[in-house]
This record gives sequence, C-alpha cells and structure tokens, in this order.
Amino acid sequence: MTTTDTTRLCRSFQTAPAAVPKADTAKYLRSGLTAEGFEAPDWLVPDLEDGTAPSMKDEALENTVDLLGTHDFAGECWPRIEWSDTSAELRERGRDQIETLVREVDEHVDGVVVPKVGGIEDFDRVCRTLADVRETYDVPQDEIGLAIILETAQARSALREIAHRAADTPLSAIVFGPVDYTAQLGGRDVGSGRPRWDGTLEALSIETSANDLLAIGGPFDELFTTRAGVTAYRAEAYAEQVELEAHLGLDGSWSLHPKQTVQANHVHMPLPDELERALDRIERATAALDDGTGAVSIDGQMIDEATIKNFRNTVSLVRAIDDRAPQQTASRYDEELLAHARDIDLASP
Amino acid sequence: MTTTDTTRLCRSFQTAPAAVPKADTAKYLRSGLTAEGFEAPDWLVPDLEDGTAPSMKDEALENTVDLLGTHDFAGECWPRIEWSDTSAELRERGRDQIETLVREVDEHVDGVVVPKVGGIEDFDRVCRTLADVRETYDVPQDEIGLAIILETAQARSALREIAHRAADTPLSAIVFGPVDYTAQLGGRDVGSGRPRWDGTLEALSIETSANDLLAIGGPFDELFTTRAGVTAYRAEAYAEQVELEAHLGLDGSWSLHPKQTVQANHVHMPLPDELERALDRIERATAALDDGTGAVSIDGQMIDEATIKNFRNTVSLVRAIDDRAPQQTASRYDEELLAHARDIDLASP
Amino acid sequence: MTTTDTTRLCRSFQTAPAAVPKADTAKYLRSGLTAEGFEAPDWLVPDLEDGTAPSMKDEALENTVDLLGTHDFAGECWPRIEWSDTSAELRERGRDQIETLVREVDEHVDGVVVPKVGGIEDFDRVCRTLADVRETYDVPQDEIGLAIILETAQARSALREIAHRAADTPLSAIVFGPVDYTAQLGGRDVGSGRPRWDGTLEALSIETSANDLLAIGGPFDELFTTRAGVTAYRAEAYAEQVELEAHLGLDGSWSLHPKQTVQANHVHMPLPDELERALDRIERATAALDDGTGAVSIDGQMIDEATIKNFRNTVSLVRAIDDRAPQQTASRYDEELLAHARDIDLASP
Repeated sequence: MTTTDTTRLCRSFQTAPAAVPKADTAKYLRSGLTAEGFEAPDWLVPDLEDGTAPSMKDEALENTVDLLGTHDFAGECWPRIEWSDTSAELRERGRDQIETLVREVDEHVDGVVVPKVGGIEDFDRVCRTLADVRETYDVPQDEIGLAIILETAQARSALREIAHRAADTPLSAIVFGPVDYTAQLGGRDVGSGRPRWDGTLEALSIETSANDLLAIGGPFDELFTTRAGVTAYRAEAYAEQVELEAHLGLDGSWSLHPKQTVQANHVHMPLPDELERALDRIERATAALDDGTGAVSIDGQMIDEATIKNFRNTVSLVRAIDDRAPQQTASRYDEELLAHARDIDLASP
Repeated sequence: MTTTDTTRLCRSFQTAPAAVPKADTAKYLRSGLTAEGFEAPDWLVPDLEDGTAPSMKDEALENTVDLLGTHDFAGECWPRIEWSDTSAELRERGRDQIETLVREVDEHVDGVVVPKVGGIEDFDRVCRTLADVRETYDVPQDEIGLAIILETAQARSALREIAHRAADTPLSAIVFGPVDYTAQLGGRDVGSGRPRWDGTLEALSIETSANDLLAIGGPFDELFTTRAGVTAYRAEAYAEQVELEAHLGLDGSWSLHPKQTVQANHVHMPLPDELERALDRIERATAALDDGTGAVSIDGQMIDEATIKNFRNTVSLVRAIDDRAPQQTASRYDEELLAHARDIDLASP
Repeated sequence: MTTTDTTRLCRSFQTAPAAVPKADTAKYLRSGLTAEGFEAPDWLVPDLEDGTAPSMKDEALENTVDLLGTHDFAGECWPRIEWSDTSAELRERGRDQIETLVREVDEHVDGVVVPKVGGIEDFDRVCRTLADVRETYDVPQDEIGLAIILETAQARSALREIAHRAADTPLSAIVFGPVDYTAQLGGRDVGSGRPRWDGTLEALSIETSANDLLAIGGPFDELFTTRAGVTAYRAEAYAEQVELEAHLGLDGSWSLHPKQTVQANHVHMPLPDELERALDRIERATAALDDGTGAVSIDGQMIDEATIKNFRNTVSLVRAIDDRAPQQTASRYDEELLAHARDIDLASP
C-alpha cells in the first residue's frame, strides 16, 4: 500500500532476511507477510542488507519482487537496501536495488530503508538517488518514502539538519542502529553491558518530533536465553527496551521476531485508559468551546487548543491501527469505547 | 522593580493564577505579593496563560494591572502572557496583553514570560513584538525583560541559536516546560513515571551558561499525597527535583506554592560553608597577588583568575539575596559571615 | 617523537607539574619520562598551567625544555600551556610558551594541550597562534599537534564546529575538563556528588568519532582516602570512571598518578578475548571474500566491509601499543596471539 497523508503508523519495524539458506529461501519474508493479529507488523522490512548473506543478495531481491503484493498484507512494506557513506560499490548496489523495486513492484513498496547514511552530503546523495529513479520511472514523490538508519557518528552529528530536510524530501522515519554506531564510537562492554546512548535516543525523539517524522528504536538481538538446558524467550528484557523507547517518545520499536512484534505493537498502542481519557477531554473541551467558555480546566489540567491536539493524536493513532489491524483494536478495546473513538469529531472547532 | 545589570536572581519562579473563581479573584496574586521571609519568591509570575481559565482572562489581566505596584514586594514581577508558535489568535492575544502591561504598569513589570515558543523564526517574532510595543510606548529595551518557556521540540532543536540571541535581545531566562514538551515528543509514563529529559536539562544548563542567561526548571504539580485519609505535602519529592536542577547548574526552580518557594529559595542559596570557602579563597588569592606570587594553590586547588571568578559569583549571589530578602540572609548566615560577604572587595585586581 | 599518520594512541593522558617546590623541581616530570611497563603513559603532559604555581611558571618551562629528549621515553610529549578565552594576558603567555617549545625542543614535542578554549572564534585564534609560530620557525604542520581541553560552556556549545575543524587544523584530541566546566555551568554537589555530565561525554564521543579525533576523559583528583589512620589508593573509584569512559567510546583517560596510568592503560587496551575475536573475524571474512562468497555471517553477526573495519581497528590498536610499549603487550597477550596480531594482513581486499 502507498503512504497516505493520514497518521503515520510504525509501532513495529520488523526486519526479515529476504533470502535464507533454507528449502524456502523466502521463508521469513512469507511469514511476515502472512502474520495475523498482534503478530502482524506495522512495517515489514525485507532485508537486502546485513540480514542476508552476500551470496544470496540477488535471490533476496527476487524474493522481494516476487512476494510483495501476492499476500493480503495490511501493513506497509519498506525494503532495506544496501548503502554506505564510505563505499561507492555499496551505493551502486543500493541504487540498482531501488531501481528494481520501483520498476517491478512500485505499487507494493511504501518506501525504502537506507542504512549507514553519513552526514548531510550523504543524506542529500540518498535523496538525489531516489529522485533520479523516480523520475526515470515517472513515479510521484509521495509514492516512495524514505527511512534512514541512524548508525554513523556523522549522521548523529548532522541529525538536526537531516531531520529538518523532512519538509523537502520523502523522509518519513529515522531508525536507530546501535550496533554499527557503538562500533564506530568505540563504545565497549566493560562489564555493564552495551552503551544505551540515552542522549542519542533523546535527540532522536526531539528532532523527529520537531519535523513530524517517526522515530524507531534499534534491534534487540539476544532473543533467547538457555539455562539448565531450557531455552526461553527473553520477553522481559525486550519489554524493558521497548518501554524505554515509549517513555522517551519513540513511535515504534525494531522487531526481529513475531514475538517481539506482538510486544512492540502492544506497548506503542494507547492503553484503554489513555484512549478513554483522550475522548473525555476532547468532548469536554468541545462543549466548553460551544458554550463560549473557550477552554476548561479538567482534573487540574488546563485544556486548550495546544493540549487538545495531543488527545486528538491519541484517537487518530487508534483509528490508524483500527484501519490496518481491526483484530488488534477489537481485542484491546471494548466495543463501545472503540465505536466512540471511530465516531468522535476530530476537526478543530 | 526594574532589572538592573547586577547579578540576576531567580531561585524561585513562582506562578500564580492571576484570576481564580473565588470571592477574591486575585487571591493567589495578592498572596504572592505579600509573602514574607523564605516564602517570598524571587520572581512572581502572574499567570495569564494556562493557570487561568479562558473565561477569566480579562479579569486576570485587570487584577495584574491593579495589583502590581500596590504592595511592597521586593522580588521581580514577570507576567506570563499567552502565545503559541502555532496559533495566530494566541499571539494576537499575547501582543495585546504585553501592550496593556507596558502601557499601564510598565514600571512594575520586570519582563514577560512567553510560553510555547517555536523555532528561531518564532523567537524572533516574539522579540519583534516586544520591540514594537516598547517603541510605541517609548520604553527603553532594558526595562522589559524576556523569559521564554522551552516546551516545544522546535525550541529545543533551536536552543543554541535562541540562547545565542541573548546578546542582541532582552532575553534573560529560559524556563523548562516539561508538560507540553513531553506531550509533543510523545513521551509516555509506561510504569516508570514521566520522562525526566536529562539531556534537555543538561543542554539548558550549557546554553544558558554560555550566554549569561538564567536557567529555570519545570513545575512539579503533584504537591500533595493522601494516604489513609491524611493529606501530606510532598516535600521530599519536590526537594529531589530541585536538587537535581541545582546539581545540573540550573539557577532556580519553578514553584506552584509558597511551600515550594521556601524549598527552592533554600536549595539555590549558597550554604554557609560554600560562602565561607568563597570568601577565604578570594582573600588568599588577593593576598598572593599583592605579594607578587601571582596565584596560589589552596587545598590542592590552583586558584587563578578563572577560578576566582566563581568564588566572586557566590558572594555576588549572596549579596543579591541580601539586597532583596535580608530576612533570608539573616536567618541563614551568622552576622560575622554576612558582614564579611558585604564588605569584601570583589573587584578584579 | 613526532605524531605519525598511523593509529593515534592515548590510553593514558598523564599530567605532571613541570615544576614543584622540591629539591628537584622537575621530580614529577622526570618520573613520568622514566616510568616503565604499565606505568609509562601514552601521553606525558608537562603541565605549565594549573598544576604549576604561578611563581614557578618560568622554571616549569625551563624544566620542560631541559628534560624533553634526554630520556628514552617511548610515549608522546604534549605540554599543557596557558591560555584562556577571557584573558589576553594568559593568551600572550601561552603564545610565548609555544614559541619557546617550538624553538628549543620542537623535535621532542608531539603537540600542545590548550586549556580554557572558548567558542569557535577562540578555537580559530588558537590555530592561528600555532600556525604563526610554526611559520616563524619553519616547522611543518604535522609536527606540532593540538589537543584542547573542553571546559567552557562556549566550547561545549561549539563542540560540533570545533571537531569539524579537524580536517583543516592540527587538532588531534579533545580532553574533558570537568572542574572549570562544572564551575561555569554552576553545577553543585548537593549531596549526590559532582555532576557527571553524561550528555557531554556522549557528545564528546560522537563528535570526535565523526572527525577521527581522540576523546579523553577528565581528571579524577580524589586519589587517596584515609580511614582509621590508614591511607588507601582509591583504585575502584577511579576504575569506575575509566570504565564509564571506555563504555561511552572515549579513547583514553586522564591520569594524575602512575597508579592511575596503570589502570587507564589496562582498561583502554583490548582484552585478549577481544583481540582473538577480531583476528578470527578478519581471517574468516578474508577467506569468504577469496571464495567469492563476498561476506559471512559469524555467530549470527553479518561480517561486511563496514564491520570488518572495526576488527582491523582493534588489531591496529594492539600493534600501536606493541610498537610503543612491548612490555605491556608481552605481559597481556600470549606469544602466539601477539605474533598473529603482528602478522595478519590488515589491507582491505
């Protein structure tokens, strides 16, 4: 599906290697496209980059071209192509991959995810490459979005300028890539785990919010733990990361597994209480405006145009999820609450 | 009183709704203006914005005009007007409020507090508005100061540029506004409380220090807690926030209640030990310079021109408090120490 | 020795007062130059600034001129001169000190450390001063490096621009100076110790990494503690600081004592396991490239050109240490591992 100008939704950014050395090389891609309920990711990211072995890159691209559009997938598809600020060869490969995707499955690709972007010059190079391909195949700008992985010190240093480009480019999301980032910064695990880069997460939340972009957290790759011969999924450890990301205002989290997708979809979805409060505030504020009172103080909080906007955002987010994944909203909210969220007037008075 | 070019002092930034639905609609404003001892705020902020109901805005402005100057208030008065980067209507109202204040009670207004400022263009718009009004009423620039609330992602993103404008504008202080900020960034309480935005507080301390501005923390609104039917003032929780702000180098804290003002005034005031050490270092350094030694090492710390400046700042701060609130200095320091602070020569040798 | 274009190495940045009021006024300088094993600092910093009493500044410069080059010191020598953004007198003294060092012992000085640098204009002034002196004495740019202490709010505010100058100036390292920094920001110890400035450390790691500079932590000056009459070296407290710095990707730590140098040299040196893993990954990646496979996935991590670069950096770091301090590498790695690190081909395929 194509990105629309309604609420952007990416609670879960699930990467899937687009080709793996198995009988069905498209196993994980197919699994992502057919996932149901809370396992269905908001964004499925067929991975042509680090998740796919070099010897299988061509097959990965073929699998992506072959499979996109053949399933009734309600989320968005954002293939991760190859790129690097420091390698002309990788940029050339990335350009070819974009070209193939646009030429072959344009209508099923919502955007591309570009890794290892450097400073502002490299970001501009990414945008020119995208624009060139679009022009060649006569595709309008809003049909192919752009998400970048923030994983070089150069991109972090230029984060403000890059995010500011949102107004003039198809940039829709910035995704944190802690592995390469930590390696370049030289961060080390000297006994207290990997660095969390709290300052970088806070900056990501700030700059994306200032420019109406989505902010997505980085992958959590220690999915399982084995103790006394028993292997267990590490739900709590992942939950902690996703909750930290939600705490700091990130919109979604990276998922490497359907179990992680379930968690990310839940954490980044308003709680029934949050939805109920938002609906209540909107109604009371609207009533006060109709009365000519202008605004109201509710439970000690002054509700004005500025704060009401955030309550509208909560309802819009629930509607966007409801449009895409009605199974999820039906399971989370009771019928009456959901009907209320669908019916309420969100227009500014 | 009018801002002078001596030490800026704002340990406590106490907002008071300028009109409330009570028999005396100016109750809180009057209470702020007549507070004594440590309850007297350094800055009293008559709130024409979110603290006052929309239906009482006109009365709030009238109360402010009527009351400023009628009491023997030793602190500074900085009304918070209405403004918003995203609403022309609010900016129009804000301009009218500034105009009324300047026209009617110019000599009792030290400056205005402007909320919801956006990026650098909006900040410049605030400054032009102020300059227009000043020129209309022929008021010199240094008579009406400017404090802004840092509560949008755009202002945070432009913080460095905004703070840098201090040299060319009446900007005197930047105050953190975590409620709207958290809402815009999408930060959520998912079990571990509201985000603290440590990175933003650190940046606020840096940029204000680099440009000789005051930095003030955000409000703490859970003033009371009720357990087993007993309601208690949450002194410890507020102390933790104020101490964090002092730790990070902020100059003052936001107060919503006289009890909070007492705490903020105490925490942001040098301890007797700090004052004593400052006086001792200044004297020994001056003696060394007179001897021709040039500088001295005291307790392992080298005292040179640069470090001596900070000891002078401590003494200047105590003097500024002493000028404004002699009850506070008399209660905190013994007579001899205070006399020493008043008498010592602070001029650079 | 002169800075070369190989791996920059500064695990330990040891300052030594260049003159002290003892029978041998050059005692600490001499001790640094003759230290052996892990006590030998990577950078010895003869301190002409805050570590030396004003009355001994001339003797400090004489000691530095007299002693540099007279011992078989394998590390680099980076005298800290006087400077201040806010004092023309100190800048004049600093310029004279640079001139004397360049004129008298150019071949033994790897660079100068400049304290209290302000914003970008002051940084540029530092660079012009260095260039003037170099031109006067006809010394090529790469013979005299530049390290600055980040200890003013102005320098922090301009950190990105300053670090970006690395391409056009002899800037090699940025060193954190928390004492003056905390004083200027007004940070206070109100019960929870001194501020750590985590955001500043993270920014330092980012901007130095983006511009191929070294990042060095600040001094830890509470070296000893006395309890029940027994004085003990505070190894654990210092280890915590150095490990935090390594965690955040800083390259080295400030040392005030040979015991601290031993710790800094250890923490910032790859563990045998880290070295072994790096060698293994480089070999397997090279083999895969020879096979035409292009890259490999090892233990779930995709090894491509970008990630392999970091493993090469680990080996290069060990080689640099081995060149300078073979006693240290011999004591840390077994012979076979070290031979492997010396022999492996690090060229890009």
